[in-house]
Amino acid sequence: MSDDASAIPSPSRRQLLVGGGAVAGWGAALALGVDAAVAAPSSAPAAVPSQDTAGLRGASTVPFHGPHQAGVTVVPQAHSTFVALDLVDGVDRDALGRLMRLLTDDARRLTQGLPALADTEPELARRPARLTVTFGFGPGFVASAGGEAPGWLGPLPAFGVDRLEEGWSDGDLLLEVASDDPVTVAHAVRMLLKGTRAFATVRWLQQGFRDAYGSVPTGTTMRNLFGQIDGTVNLVPGSVDAEDLVWIRDGWLDRGTSVVVRRIAMNLETWDELDRPGREQSVGRRLDTGAPLTGTREHDEPDFDAVDAVGFPVIPEFSHIARARSADPRERFLRRGYNYDLPPRPGAISESGLIFVSFQADPVTQFVPVQRRLDELDLLNTWTTPIGSAVFAVPPGCQEGGFVGETLLG
Amino acid sequence: MSDDASAIPSPSRRQLLVGGGAVAGWGAALALGVDAAVAAPSSAPAAVPSQDTAGLRGASTVPFHGPHQAGVTVVPQAHSTFVALDLVDGVDRDALGRLMRLLTDDARRLTQGLPALADTEPELARRPARLTVTFGFGPGFVASAGGEAPGWLGPLPAFGVDRLEEGWSDGDLLLEVASDDPVTVAHAVRMLLKGTRAFATVRWLQQGFRDAYGSVPTGTTMRNLFGQIDGTVNLVPGSVDAEDLVWIRDGWLDRGTSVVVRRIAMNLETWDELDRPGREQSVGRRLDTGAPLTGTREHDEPDFDAVDAVGFPVIPEFSHIARARSADPRERFLRRGYNYDLPPRPGAISESGLIFVSFQADPVTQFVPVQRRLDELDLLNTWTTPIGSAVFAVPPGCQEGGFVGETLLG
Ligand code: HEM
Ligand code: HEM
Repeated sequence: MSDDASAIPSPSRRQLLVGGGAVAGWGAALALGVDAAVAAPSSAPAAVPSQDTAGLRGASTVPFHGPHQAGVTVVPQAHSTFVALDLVDGVDRDALGRLMRLLTDDARRLTQGLPALADTEPELARRPARLTVTFGFGPGFVASAGGEAPGWLGPLPAFGVDRLEEGWSDGDLLLEVASDDPVTVAHAVRMLLKGTRAFATVRWLQQGFRDAYGSVPTGTTMRNLFGQIDGTVNLVPGSVDAEDLVWIRDGWLDRGTSVVVRRIAMNLETWDELDRPGREQSVGRRLDTGAPLTGTREHDEPDFDAVDAVGFPVIPEFSHIARARSADPRERFLRRGYNYDLPPRPGAISESGLIFVSFQADPVTQFVPVQRRLDELDLLNTWTTPIGSAVFAVPPGCQEGGFVGETLLG
Repeated sequence: MSDDASAIPSPSRRQLLVGGGAVAGWGAALALGVDAAVAAPSSAPAAVPSQDTAGLRGASTVPFHGPHQAGVTVVPQAHSTFVALDLVDGVDRDALGRLMRLLTDDARRLTQGLPALADTEPELARRPARLTVTFGFGPGFVASAGGEAPGWLGPLPAFGVDRLEEGWSDGDLLLEVASDDPVTVAHAVRMLLKGTRAFATVRWLQQGFRDAYGSVPTGTTMRNLFGQIDGTVNLVPGSVDAEDLVWIRDGWLDRGTSVVVRRIAMNLETWDELDRPGREQSVGRRLDTGAPLTGTREHDEPDFDAVDAVGFPVIPEFSHIARARSADPRERFLRRGYNYDLPPRPGAISESGLIFVSFQADPVTQFVPVQRRLDELDLLNTWTTPIGSAVFAVPPGCQEGGFVGETLLG
């Protein structure tokens, strides 16, 4: 986004509807000053670069209590760890209540820079650096709770591109732990997992990262490891659209949402064999500015009808953005992904990809149609492979004295 | 260290000799303004917290050229990846010269925020965030180069505490790639490894982290995942001691050094079973302030002779600091370690530890005696296990037009 918020033109109705250009992205949420307390709890929207005025970044906190869980609409932190747990046999509704009370209590403290109840390294709790902890329930959790699972809660339909590994898929309980400080994430994950030990085992754990805090101007859209600007066209936290498309409106999930976590391997080696124009056409955007191939600035509205001298579309029909954009404005979601980078396997020099994360009220009607279109055809598929997939119901937030999951378990 | 540089008393001769209290640590290097261009290339020594005045953190660079390689005395960056390579058969002296010219050229560019020569994601090179690249040569490298290996270049003697795994030990060529931005590290590692493909394969890769930039005051000693302040008593980059003890003075390694990289698993589970006084006694320092058990502030000089009411030493003789400190002032080194935190193995909730890193002119005379004493007796051994070990010769830096390794290969 532009460094100067006032330079952002006011969005046309069409842009709002299709989630297009000018108002998209986390940066826009800052620029518009929408729901700043939630979207950007400790950044001064006008200051670019901004240093937390209240002191050091480590001291910044995101409110834990509220109608929604934190960690969905907050400007993404630099580091995020996703942990999926399997419940052990015999964990019933009562036990789940105890578990979620315990976890909520630890999350409430840790996110505010206070040690967890039985914190063995309390000093590591003192620099939350915008720590958020977000809980999600898988089908097994809801079943053990004796609750009613929404129709969409379960594995996504199989896609042709999938090469899913069990070790990166599904799970009964998700913890997303995100902070601008990696030491804080390591400590919080461990304190939370200690609390789960009698109830569950770790199924998978994925560590992700984005641009470090302070490295690029506040509000800059992240770059993934293909070098692409990733996240330009996105729901804007706090906007009317996002309120409508992210949050659920009824039942125990009222003010909750759903999260899709897909681990997508990115083959950097074959990607690098492609020339730059080829790479830009596969997505439909420029690598330097992130502008659509029909524009000059990141947030310019793509013109999918423009053709070149010989009559070919400037943005190829099979490009990722042409395929990912739906004519149906409800087929949208809030993307909030992270890069991953593991030590390479023998013979390789990298093992990288994207932890694709999207929040939406209903994954079946909002996410699946898009993923299906991308499955059918998307140039980007040549270099990307989904190797993990999981869906969780993200219950609403809670107030002081309450706990996350109380609408299901309380 | 104290937030107020002027509060640091001037060191006594004894403190300088034993590396004690008041002048130790990276913070002291800042406070003393010693070699600030090297020790803290982009931080204003007086400003705590400091935001890079020249703009965003991402734009900060550390000079590449110089008598020494960068990355040894620079204030540790938030992220560091250590990669050890095995040379493929037939890589001779000429090939090594080509390899090191190539790697130097990429490192020279990347550290200054410029794309590598054949950079396929040039945009990811634009925020170096104090990127440094440091090269080290193992015995296989020096042999293939037909050079003379210093007597200390090879595996350390075996220690009783060791449970070394081949997959974390030894190697022919080390790259240490460190930056305050994890995206920068991922990109730089990959660009460098692309250049090595015809010459070598990845033997091991270790990813480490410390406090995020801006999270805690500049100059704060890091905390490890036991929650301890780790690095208080250390050589001060730029001090007379460090100049003398870190840098080699003759042969092709003149102005170079050696690096010991030991991967040490930390059993957080059993550590947490110990009560707080027990944990503090195992090290001889307090967990909150890092002060010695005989003092109140982190940089207070420990009094190893003090006894309690019943005549026991206040700092136990078997504590880590009592055992690690030598009466011989030459048995010191520059510690510059990183935390690691991997996804846990089945049944566990953490897999954490320390990438112990030390720089010294001669590991056999400076490092080994200390490690041997700790091997014989150190309460901390109960919870720590060395699982990897490697030693590399770190050649001197180079000037424009030159390359790292030219004193061996040129
Ligand atoms: C590793 C895999 C992927 C990569 C590297 C990737 C990369 C990108 C990039 C560079 C853009 C253009 C900038 C932007 O607007 O964010 C984009 C847009 C988008 N992507 Fe992806 N993406 C991946 C997977 C997915 C998946 C799995 C989905 C959903 C099923 C998805 C949905 C979208 C949507 C909805 C847009 C915005 C399209 C529009 O302009 O309306 N992406 N992606
Ligand atoms: C996971 C393993 C280790 C942990 C958790 C650890 C932790 C610590 C801590 C908390 C201190 C006190 C604060 C300070 O002065 O830095 C310390 C001091 C020290 N450690 Fe370690 N350490 C470990 C391994 C080692 C190893 C392998 C060596 C060298 C063989 C070493 C050498 C030293 C030295 C020389 C000091 C300073 C002692 C003095 O006061 O003069 N440590 N370490």
